Amino acid sequence: MIRTGIVGATGYTALELILILLRHPDARITRLTSRSPESQSIADVHPCLRNRLDLDITSYDPDDFSENVDCAFCCLPHAASSAVVRELAGRGVRVIDFSADYRLNSLEDFTSVYQAEHADPNRLGKVPYGLPELFRPQIEAADVIANPGCFPTSAILPLAPLVREGLIRTSDIVIDSKTGVSGAGRTPKPAFHFPECNESVAAYGVGTHRHGPEIAQIIERWSGKPVECLFVPHLIPMTRGILSTIYVHPAENQTSDGIARFLADFYRNSPFVRCTDQLPQTANVSGTNFCDLAVRQVGNRVAIISVIDNLVKGASGAAVQNMNVAFGLPETVALR
Amino acid sequence: MIRTGIVGATGYTALELILILLRHPDARITRLTSRSPESQSIADVHPCLRNRLDLDITSYDPDDFSENVDCAFCCLPHAASSAVVRELAGRGVRVIDFSADYRLNSLEDFTSVYQAEHADPNRLGKVPYGLPELFRPQIEAADVIANPGCFPTSAILPLAPLVREGLIRTSDIVIDSKTGVSGAGRTPKPAFHFPECNESVAAYGVGTHRHGPEIAQIIERWSGKPVECLFVPHLIPMTRGILSTIYVHPAENQTSDGIARFLADFYRNSPFVRCTDQLPQTANVSGTNFCDLAVRQVGNRVAIISVIDNLVKGASGAAVQNMNVAFGLPETVALR
Amino acid sequence: MIRTGIVGATGYTALELILILLRHPDARITRLTSRSPESQSIADVHPCLRNRLDLDITSYDPDDFSENVDCAFCCLPHAASSAVVRELAGRGVRVIDFSADYRLNSLEDFTSVYQAEHADPNRLGKVPYGLPELFRPQIEAADVIANPGCFPTSAILPLAPLVREGLIRTSDIVIDSKTGVSGAGRTPKPAFHFPECNESVAAYGVGTHRHGPEIAQIIERWSGKPVECLFVPHLIPMTRGILSTIYVHPAENQTSDGIARFLADFYRNSPFVRCTDQLPQTANVSGTNFCDLAVRQVGNRVAIISVIDNLVKGASGAAVQNMNVAFGLPETVALR
Amino acid sequence: MIRTGIVGATGYTALELILILLRHPDARITRLTSRSPESQSIADVHPCLRNRLDLDITSYDPDDFSENVDCAFCCLPHAASSAVVRELAGRGVRVIDFSADYRLNSLEDFTSVYQAEHADPNRLGKVPYGLPELFRPQIEAADVIANPGCFPTSAILPLAPLVREGLIRTSDIVIDSKTGVSGAGRTPKPAFHFPECNESVAAYGVGTHRHGPEIAQIIERWSGKPVECLFVPHLIPMTRGILSTIYVHPAENQTSDGIARFLADFYRNSPFVRCTDQLPQTANVSGTNFCDLAVRQVGNRVAIISVIDNLVKGASGAAVQNMNVAFGLPETVALR
Repeated sequence: MIRTGIVGATGYTALELILILLRHPDARITRLTSRSPESQSIADVHPCLRNRLDLDITSYDPDDFSENVDCAFCCLPHAASSAVVRELAGRGVRVIDFSADYRLNSLEDFTSVYQAEHADPNRLGKVPYGLPELFRPQIEAADVIANPGCFPTSAILPLAPLVREGLIRTSDIVIDSKTGVSGAGRTPKPAFHFPECNESVAAYGVGTHRHGPEIAQIIERWSGKPVECLFVPHLIPMTRGILSTIYVHPAENQTSDGIARFLADFYRNSPFVRCTDQLPQTANVSGTNFCDLAVRQVGNRVAIISVIDNLVKGASGAAVQNMNVAFGLPETVALR
Repeated sequence: MIRTGIVGATGYTALELILILLRHPDARITRLTSRSPESQSIADVHPCLRNRLDLDITSYDPDDFSENVDCAFCCLPHAASSAVVRELAGRGVRVIDFSADYRLNSLEDFTSVYQAEHADPNRLGKVPYGLPELFRPQIEAADVIANPGCFPTSAILPLAPLVREGLIRTSDIVIDSKTGVSGAGRTPKPAFHFPECNESVAAYGVGTHRHGPEIAQIIERWSGKPVECLFVPHLIPMTRGILSTIYVHPAENQTSDGIARFLADFYRNSPFVRCTDQLPQTANVSGTNFCDLAVRQVGNRVAIISVIDNLVKGASGAAVQNMNVAFGLPETVALR
Repeated sequence: MIRTGIVGATGYTALELILILLRHPDARITRLTSRSPESQSIADVHPCLRNRLDLDITSYDPDDFSENVDCAFCCLPHAASSAVVRELAGRGVRVIDFSADYRLNSLEDFTSVYQAEHADPNRLGKVPYGLPELFRPQIEAADVIANPGCFPTSAILPLAPLVREGLIRTSDIVIDSKTGVSGAGRTPKPAFHFPECNESVAAYGVGTHRHGPEIAQIIERWSGKPVECLFVPHLIPMTRGILSTIYVHPAENQTSDGIARFLADFYRNSPFVRCTDQLPQTANVSGTNFCDLAVRQVGNRVAIISVIDNLVKGASGAAVQNMNVAFGLPETVALR
Repeated sequence: MIRTGIVGATGYTALELILILLRHPDARITRLTSRSPESQSIADVHPCLRNRLDLDITSYDPDDFSENVDCAFCCLPHAASSAVVRELAGRGVRVIDFSADYRLNSLEDFTSVYQAEHADPNRLGKVPYGLPELFRPQIEAADVIANPGCFPTSAILPLAPLVREGLIRTSDIVIDSKTGVSGAGRTPKPAFHFPECNESVAAYGVGTHRHGPEIAQIIERWSGKPVECLFVPHLIPMTRGILSTIYVHPAENQTSDGIARFLADFYRNSPFVRCTDQLPQTANVSGTNFCDLAVRQVGNRVAIISVIDNLVKGASGAAVQNMNVAFGLPETVALR
């Protein structure tokens, strides 16, 4: 039985994580923490958990936490996470970090993209990126795992194998992503006030979103080839789900059919990637850890449509998948 | 007082048209028709019109219609429209056609894209495309006007001037559009059943949507330069609105700033095109005839964000704008 | 030309009011104020107004405001409003107040329900309630008008005439209301964060909502008969609209048919109340100043279904209707 | 291992049932049928099931079905169900019937409410109503179980114990229910077309909905006391969830506090009924088999707020709960 704990248990990804862990036969939740000084019942924060999890959210105490937790899920904001991760990893707890603190290659990259201090710079570049479909051996051996960003998951899964295999050009890749509002977190802000985002669609972070560099670096890290991607996210009026429409130039003599066949073959043993003939929609993966992919010819370009649930495969499902891999369990436990 | 009539008055675009015409000081509605053999009150079909328009929907009779109508709005499906348009135009009624029957250059194009017969092939290529921002002189003189498609409006307005001016490359233009469900019309179908499209986003018609050729032909017709566009529409869970994200390669030495300035200058006298610094969202144009445009640099590409209300500037507002131009009224009457 | 000004111009009701006033042939907007010390363009606050209203929001200055405004719309929060209303009324400006400060009968009632100070207690009980359908003579002569609450409008319009006429019992009236989220205002709060209220419905303020006493007092004020109402509001995932389901006991020998006929007859000359046979839905009145009513027998009870747009007939449309009445214009100007 | 089969596997309740059964350690799905003559993969009908259930939907054959199924879930429309239920029960298959065919007391009641033939009239009145919270002993022994209606579940759970205990008056109970659109099934119809029900709320079946008699009969069957209920359902723009606001008169000397305490005590051993102090919202029970209840004083009345997920506790979760009870398993298997 893996003893798990969540640092930062009040947000949407933490809730989704708890719901998955409650179904996990080989894990139990022993600690939940938040930055609030006063302890409160988890059911007061997430009323849907009433009668399902009888545990208080307490202040984070590294001694207590590391004594009672084998696998820590760190759901803290970017830049706040690395200090806790370093501390827990130093005490022998395996850590799956939801923040972006360990996703990029170097301190320089982190500083440039996030413009913040980093409490654990020596680990940067050594922490595996938590996509078991691509980095399984590294994840199996890791003490710290960088859980992927939601948009990057939807883009890297189809792109990385195509880049390494040379089936597409590595430049001029356009990634147009559409996300539900839960991706913005649980803190009320004007842009996410119901009457502001209902019945409306908007682009945001055009040319500046931090997931752009993450996508490019991870594809390059895995494939060995630098890529040039344009990434533009859009906010649409739904709670969960991401659909990314990815426009690529096929390499010479390549077609959408060949690309589709290659992806289906590449992922034939990956239980959470489904290559489909039908165009996918986010409802088909809602509440699941699947990534559905379809490929279409559009003129002389190829479009790849990729959908995930941003809270599951884009966050908490991937985290449990990573825990399963890191602790030697079947990858799909609690996720199918 | 312009006497107006609507052929095919039961759909969403007809309702939006009626609501605009009811505010028009120089127009009144004299005839509403549908293919149903039995006449019924317009308020039974569109309950929101109760006490606002006391008129029955009747069968279409060309004699009666042409005697009582100066300006006909033809809201029939593609391929069904041209027979009526020819008939009414032949009797001296000016016709604004909502279908795609007169938008493309030639019968060959129409047949290839719509795979249907055309009842008025001689007019093809001579009917102005109803974007007064680009084709005002032709619209002023026309007996038949091809009201633009909703997606094309959102794409042509920013692209055509940039292509003609040579500020962007004419190839490899990616148009990624997101539309509300009202664009699919009023007939219930599985894909538009509330539980199917709520909380979901999907791409559709990838590489095959009929608005792709329309966009390319109209840009070429106006600019004199052939363009190569990729167009992919997406269905998102809202009723009205279109946002198009358009990825272009700037011409050498061009930047997003220069492109933004050029567009702002080009449209400075167009009352319905607003070039904004802020990123637009569809809610900002909902219920209005505006098209909002913003430009951003994304790596070495430029992204243009364009939003319209698909039922207003994408259909019925444009139609009234066309009527205003064709009948010598100020372009903005009933639309501001 | 009526010179109008809005005190508190940043919220949803102020925006809706501006959109209506822009269509008003006999009114123009001369002043917009907010509590922010820095002036800013109205289009920066409400981007949909770009190119439609070229006016800055400024600090409220009573001298400047009263010199330039004939009709003030006061869109301030409850308890904050009465000081401004008194000031402006004292300088001869006619004021339509959106707050609840002048709706109740007495200072005692106000203090008990709103638990706040009141800056203008002497006016309480003398200010007409702004439902022209019931209080037209008083509104015509008033210097200050208490614009009605949204829920009360949907309930008072059907109930008041039935109570006065004795067609229903005055006790045990149940008013179950469902509202869109714009009724909660524009300030982001957890309950109105998109992922919290999307795909969910909740009751709130059960037995304690401040509109309960308002409904009862106004019905009594107009009918002369005290009533006992239960009022429970619910928040549903849409932006605008209120539907109230009102359960009443018919008086002896009364039936739903008789009640329906009476209401239709009572409101036959009221341009904004539509008594319908079909069950109404809020979409039918969205964006309009209508209140649609239908009556049904349910066992030995009668249910009345009432729908309005909370931002129009429930707020800003009613305000312009009141202005029209107070300034001797036809009631429907700018509202049909 | 219980072999389960679903008759009528293409709808929303069947999909929800499949998803629950896939998590059930003691059940497997062996047969899926539909009325379509051609067999097709379940993943073609419900794309979310791809790679999760490899089974074809076939024509219903009573011999094959009864040989391979221990527990049948019959998801056929009302009136179509009883012929199949009789056939399967006659062959020794235990049947959980989703239709209303066996919910009412007598053939006369069924004919009066559903105005249809019944193929198995002798069983009427002998089949237990599938609310294990109230009818557990009967369910344990039953060959056929009438799975409850969604609205009735939300109303009967709070009302039946209060009626039997005499804590509320048995007359003049008002049940005002709000439901998501999935309750209307999967067949596209105008009222459930996205642009028609999005951004709108409507009452329907006012005074005539078939769940009214079901609520009253089951309360009476369990409590031994006849009740008089008014039931009015409303359609709101969300996919899943029901909230019922129930207005009752407390018996003499009873208050909301006493009623709340009684309900909490009554359901203290029912794992799926949660009595809460906080007002519930449907999101708190979405995707779960819980019914959350809260009680409030409103004037001299008491309001009870009850929420369920219409597809889970209102349909497929209840069905699996019934199977668990009927087959001697813990009630909560696959449901927590």
